[in-house]
Amino acid sequence: MVTINSNYLKLKAGYLFPEIARRVNAYLVENPDATIIKLGIGDVTEPLPAACREAMTAAVADMGDRDRFKGYGPEQGYIWLREAIATHDFQARGCDIDASEIFISDGSKCDCGNILDIFGDDNSIAVTDPVYPVYVDTNVMAGNTGEVNERGEYGGLVYLPISAENNFTAAIPDRKVDLIYLCFPNNPTGATATEEHLQAWVDYARGHGSLILFDAAYEAFITDPSLPHSIYEIEGARDCAIEFRSFSKNAGFTGTRCALTVVPKSLQGKAADGSDVSLWSLWNRRQSTKFNGVSYIVQRGAEAVYSEAGQTEVKALVAFYLENARIIGEHLAASGFKVYGGINAPYVWVQAPNGLSSWDFFDKLLHHCHVVGTPGAGFGAAGEGYFRISAFNSRANVEAAMGRISQQFS
Amino acid sequence: MVTINSNYLKLKAGYLFPEIARRVNAYLVENPDATIIKLGIGDVTEPLPAACREAMTAAVADMGDRDRFKGYGPEQGYIWLREAIATHDFQARGCDIDASEIFISDGSKCDCGNILDIFGDDNSIAVTDPVYPVYVDTNVMAGNTGEVNERGEYGGLVYLPISAENNFTAAIPDRKVDLIYLCFPNNPTGATATEEHLQAWVDYARGHGSLILFDAAYEAFITDPSLPHSIYEIEGARDCAIEFRSFSKNAGFTGTRCALTVVPKSLQGKAADGSDVSLWSLWNRRQSTKFNGVSYIVQRGAEAVYSEAGQTEVKALVAFYLENARIIGEHLAASGFKVYGGINAPYVWVQAPNGLSSWDFFDKLLHHCHVVGTPGAGFGAAGEGYFRISAFNSRANVEAAMGRISQQFS
Repeated sequence: MVTINSNYLKLKAGYLFPEIARRVNAYLVENPDATIIKLGIGDVTEPLPAACREAMTAAVADMGDRDRFKGYGPEQGYIWLREAIATHDFQARGCDIDASEIFISDGSKCDCGNILDIFGDDNSIAVTDPVYPVYVDTNVMAGNTGEVNERGEYGGLVYLPISAENNFTAAIPDRKVDLIYLCFPNNPTGATATEEHLQAWVDYARGHGSLILFDAAYEAFITDPSLPHSIYEIEGARDCAIEFRSFSKNAGFTGTRCALTVVPKSLQGKAADGSDVSLWSLWNRRQSTKFNGVSYIVQRGAEAVYSEAGQTEVKALVAFYLENARIIGEHLAASGFKVYGGINAPYVWVQAPNGLSSWDFFDKLLHHCHVVGTPGAGFGAAGEGYFRISAFNSRANVEAAMGRISQQFS
Repeated sequence: MVTINSNYLKLKAGYLFPEIARRVNAYLVENPDATIIKLGIGDVTEPLPAACREAMTAAVADMGDRDRFKGYGPEQGYIWLREAIATHDFQARGCDIDASEIFISDGSKCDCGNILDIFGDDNSIAVTDPVYPVYVDTNVMAGNTGEVNERGEYGGLVYLPISAENNFTAAIPDRKVDLIYLCFPNNPTGATATEEHLQAWVDYARGHGSLILFDAAYEAFITDPSLPHSIYEIEGARDCAIEFRSFSKNAGFTGTRCALTVVPKSLQGKAADGSDVSLWSLWNRRQSTKFNGVSYIVQRGAEAVYSEAGQTEVKALVAFYLENARIIGEHLAASGFKVYGGINAPYVWVQAPNGLSSWDFFDKLLHHCHVVGTPGAGFGAAGEGYFRISAFNSRANVEAAMGRISQQFS
């Protein structure tokens, strides 16, 4: 019989979001009239910008005209989109990033997982705790970890705890780690990183020959002008960092699907024969061989994000969700909760009251308030006792949910 | 320094299509007025069906309405698309395939490569020679092969030669192979498989506990009613085959991006601890963790392929390209070439005249006829001396190209 990748068997059975769905459905079976408000999964709720829709409608029309029809596009993405991104998201902030270093994809989740294809199996890997589960699970699937322990930690991974004590920013390790996942603004805690903090990481990475995998999916939510949006705003980052970005959370593309990964041409890795190899060339080969580019229609929609109208609409969307986050944070604080994040991020990270566990608090909110959030423990052992509330919902739902919580906990 | 996946260094440097582009561009620099007709890469040229465009335009409009807006969809694809596929493509042909066994993706090339994620690294793997290069290259990248030899063959792979002598259908191996790639109608040769041939493969696979990876990307081009369109038309295939399909070549989605992979729930693989594991559950976990579904807009376009109008338009598109293939085959045969395929497939496989090598014939066609095809040697050592001509172009271009070739070679 064909053999399987047995690393998959190390994965914890109860993945976070399916377990949430299971509990919600079980409650609804018993209480079919409950009006549940979901502030759990980080999925947008507001319509796509008109600029994006108009561009996609025009692109669909292109597909009906033989002269404007598009077959296979470049696996790396169309140059007009890569150039718009390089100009607006990077060069405008002083980042030395060229369009040829930007790879368009159908999602940051895909890229975060697929990037492991180009690395060896002997790198030491660090993640924060709590952390976005995809970083961990894709390393488990790739065979880069050992078994899981009773705390949910996988052997071989270096866990960097983040908590209120360290402002949810991990301490720089005191030993060498090869690959480091960083996410700012942070999912799940909503924390941000100062330029000084990122500079310390870049200095560490350059000093140790490490590579930072920087997830900037939530950069659009940064309101504080002193905070960097890209790792490439940091001196030296071109030599030690790959950055992931997405149109999911700024322009509402979670169901439309477009993202990008920046792989500077200056990045090098070590081959088994001791030679230095360009990571850009490896990722380019990976994408050329195992990917066929993003839909032309969708890429035209993403391009429109950079039009004047698109920029105005995207800013309004982000401001809308940030106002939701502000309302959530204010209500929870007024109800006596300890609250973090939610200012430069669409996530509010709240401490469960009275020493409740994450899942006990989940059940309490579900049963008594009919509000669904995400248990912090689902993001890692150090998330126990915390809870993530997402600002992605309508204003009415956010206000109703907060009203119910205030009533229950005041 | 971070280590890289050194298997990438085993890949041949000169990938087929970039080398073709290089030679064409070099010729154009010297001969800027040459009107080149490209019958090389298998990319469609005709507009998308109106039914698909109308559905996508409506889907874009959905994205502008808060109540119809779609965020994250199921990683496996929307059930309405999976059910349309199960009903029309499988159940209507007597295949026992359920919608839950169909996984929607953004491309067959992606799935063909990504499927290796779920398998162990100790399987023996067979490919035909010539073969679609992605099967081979993704195995090289996954570390399933040794080094390449001077014939372009990778150590550890089992090559099954196909040629005019065996009707371009590989002989059943006389030893055990774990994973077998089959592609019918075949890329690059345009050959087809009878029910008896596929039954022999299924019987072999069931007898040896092997798994067939069946690429049916070109099934829409089958005109002979006696030929099976799906491996699941064959008794026992549910226990030994995964099938890949695409909307690229039937509905012209090469730039729109939608495909599907069928993983029957009855398929099992062997884990390192000796237990049997469902391949469906592994692929479902892989897709849930490393993929976020296909754009809602694109899935609505794919669904429209199954509407009455969509079916009429898709049939017309396929008939158009098949008529191109017939014209190509007829002209080349009349010019004295030995011609194969092109009847139930959009590819014509032609023997280079006078013992010319594939690349010499490529240069001759480019320089004397301004026609670009694909050298058979690019698909494997046994493709040497052959040449692939694609039927994907306008009627005028096909007729002009054939006129030039007839003039040169008659």
